[in-house]
Amino acid sequence: MNQDAPADILIKETSLLPFPNSFHFIPKGWLAIKESRIIEIGSGEVPSFPARLCLDGRGCLTMPGLVNAHTHAPMALFRGLVDDLPLKVWLEEYIFPAEGRWVDADFVFWGTLLACAEMIRSGTTTFVDGYFFEEQVARAVEQAGLRAILGEGILDFPTPDSPSPAESFKKAEAFLQHYRNSSLIHPALFPHSVYTCSPVLLGKCKELREFYGAPMIIHLAETRNEVEEVYNKYGKSPVNHMENLGLLSPSLIACHCVWLTDVEMDLLARRGVKVVHNPESNMKLASGVAPIPELLARGVPVGLGTDGCASNNNLDLFQEMDSAAKLHKVHRLDSTVMPADVVLHMATLGGAKVLGLDKEIGSLEVGKKADVIVLDFNRPHLQPIYNITSHLVYSATGADVRDVIIDGQLVMQNRQLLTLDEEKILRKAKEWHKKIIVTV
Amino acid sequence: MNQDAPADILIKETSLLPFPNSFHFIPKGWLAIKESRIIEIGSGEVPSFPARLCLDGRGCLTMPGLVNAHTHAPMALFRGLVDDLPLKVWLEEYIFPAEGRWVDADFVFWGTLLACAEMIRSGTTTFVDGYFFEEQVARAVEQAGLRAILGEGILDFPTPDSPSPAESFKKAEAFLQHYRNSSLIHPALFPHSVYTCSPVLLGKCKELREFYGAPMIIHLAETRNEVEEVYNKYGKSPVNHMENLGLLSPSLIACHCVWLTDVEMDLLARRGVKVVHNPESNMKLASGVAPIPELLARGVPVGLGTDGCASNNNLDLFQEMDSAAKLHKVHRLDSTVMPADVVLHMATLGGAKVLGLDKEIGSLEVGKKADVIVLDFNRPHLQPIYNITSHLVYSATGADVRDVIIDGQLVMQNRQLLTLDEEKILRKAKEWHKKIIVTV
Repeated sequence: MNQDAPADILIKETSLLPFPNSFHFIPKGWLAIKESRIIEIGSGEVPSFPARLCLDGRGCLTMPGLVNAHTHAPMALFRGLVDDLPLKVWLEEYIFPAEGRWVDADFVFWGTLLACAEMIRSGTTTFVDGYFFEEQVARAVEQAGLRAILGEGILDFPTPDSPSPAESFKKAEAFLQHYRNSSLIHPALFPHSVYTCSPVLLGKCKELREFYGAPMIIHLAETRNEVEEVYNKYGKSPVNHMENLGLLSPSLIACHCVWLTDVEMDLLARRGVKVVHNPESNMKLASGVAPIPELLARGVPVGLGTDGCASNNNLDLFQEMDSAAKLHKVHRLDSTVMPADVVLHMATLGGAKVLGLDKEIGSLEVGKKADVIVLDFNRPHLQPIYNITSHLVYSATGADVRDVIIDGQLVMQNRQLLTLDEEKILRKAKEWHKKIIVTV
Repeated sequence: MNQDAPADILIKETSLLPFPNSFHFIPKGWLAIKESRIIEIGSGEVPSFPARLCLDGRGCLTMPGLVNAHTHAPMALFRGLVDDLPLKVWLEEYIFPAEGRWVDADFVFWGTLLACAEMIRSGTTTFVDGYFFEEQVARAVEQAGLRAILGEGILDFPTPDSPSPAESFKKAEAFLQHYRNSSLIHPALFPHSVYTCSPVLLGKCKELREFYGAPMIIHLAETRNEVEEVYNKYGKSPVNHMENLGLLSPSLIACHCVWLTDVEMDLLARRGVKVVHNPESNMKLASGVAPIPELLARGVPVGLGTDGCASNNNLDLFQEMDSAAKLHKVHRLDSTVMPADVVLHMATLGGAKVLGLDKEIGSLEVGKKADVIVLDFNRPHLQPIYNITSHLVYSATGADVRDVIIDGQLVMQNRQLLTLDEEKILRKAKEWHKKIIVTV
């Protein structure tokens, strides 16, 4: 530690899990942050040096912030609007009409703030979003101080913020330009899916992607229905259709990927495509069980996502980890698949890799961005501790998170949000509820 | 409200869900408790009358306490000891040896207190337990003020508290006698399973059961392995073997019931057997998916259980509800099965019915026991509210519980445990960890 360069934040007397692997567990150590980065990590007693702010880590675990690799943040305002219906009815008779009727700039801004409050509270420091009025998502994210990859939604038909695909495109390009040099916001393209975007539209997205070097987010092979529909339309599966259009590449973030053949998995691996697993959404909407162990075995980077609040219905990645670990075990009747370390990796460093940000986030290392969360382990459901990653995956929930630091900024301390006016956000959520309830 | 009989506890200005069904939601109401029972429930403003203690329910939901219909509370001290192994290795190479080495009266007492602290914190007010040194479980439960059905474990071989089945029996009978008139503790018999209890042993349990009118808890048809083993030994499936022994009856609480044929389900329904679903344990140990919708369709009463902490690894019934609702949807690729109301019923009134206590607990009704929990809904992940049961099943966790009342006694207020010394319990858990860790 350079005595002349005191830390901005020092977390001391804390357990540390710098990497998502139980072998790296440090029972007692400390971590120092200056500006946006981690400048020192140590085990044992902290050498005495000045720090602007000191967090007492006794009884706590300090670990990398979680990466939610797929969500639609503004949909927090539709949380629990409809459940337990067939996917087609849910989507076409409820969600699409509700979006058509209610989604505007104000909805997106306040919905995103609500989601950000929930994500910070549950230890998510980076998320990937795709929706409409994405500039409002960005505005909310900047206010919250989260890190995010944001994609403006593009479809063949009019969307809540654009009367035509051409308008969506204009918006998407303006968004890419506006945020190209932002430090916390990474702009992306979000063509919704191959069944809602024509080959021409996807081709245009490809051009934009190449010009701006931006990642492209897409829903891919989520349901059996989608596979059939795309087959009927293009004579190819969704993955092969994408291959045909030259869209499978390392900058593609393919969400869900439930219905894949072995050959398609090989292809995704060969093309360097990134995959996001959304187990709770796939369970709730009865989409199916994605072949995640097979994708991991092929070296495909896999992140973990909650999907939007209308199909989960929360944004807690700790609970998502639990579901990811357990779902595959029972699905294969094999309790050894998806062990805790693997799942925790998906929610941290693996997710960061999916986003192309693993050099900057996903683990606690000197020089990396300071996206750090502190969990209070002095709770009945987290004692005793034999294996720290087991507890993170199988026992903890987001409610165990005490402090959150993103890009070196303390955004939650002792469970108090510092960047957001939570009372006002909750009040706004209730106001939106009153409006929306009239129509359901 | 009788003005001469002021309430002991009054919860006012609260949302109320007296029954586990969204149609019974009362947006604003109040509930009064005197001694151990609910004496009034109302909607709207509360009429002014004296109460010894008044809980402010603004922004909160008041609902029946949850019923954890199957667990092994003391195993909280083995939480996360080993995971992600084949069931047989997990059980025979780790759990059984650890139990043989460490389970004594002190372990059971402190392990149960740890579990009770976790259960109260997460809104469970009644639980069903089967383990060893069950008198220590009872001692801890009395201290915590929980309601419980407790069964002393009986097996063909020596157990941690008995050198022989004969000794287990003596202990079990003494336990039945000692607690036969207790108000909060209901003694039960717990022959572990048909693969660890001989027909002779089970026959003796049947005699005791009939003499004392006590419920009998058993693990039944949990794994494919069990079914094969029992077939090989007795030429019958576990269920048919039980039928043969005359053990299928309304006082049987059959846990897991994963591997059942249609004919066996009909038989369980005909005999009035009660079933407990443990989805997270079945997922984590890769036991399989129990045919719960089919059992419910036959009118079999089904409760929800977490199983022990060594195979889950927490006791949070809110998370268990979420898993129960989602698991069956993805397993059948049908998003309409196990809707929120059905799952919530399993964790409350349905569980109470499994225990034979549905006249006393499981819903909020005047004259019923006051087992009541208050959840704080003024949180980002619980807003907005379109459907209260959706939030309870899909969005909430045990950490949202603010106050807990059991048998009219306030045992948690503002997330502070009132009956237990939590610091001491956590210290004891850490002490046990230090001992146990030496051997793993």
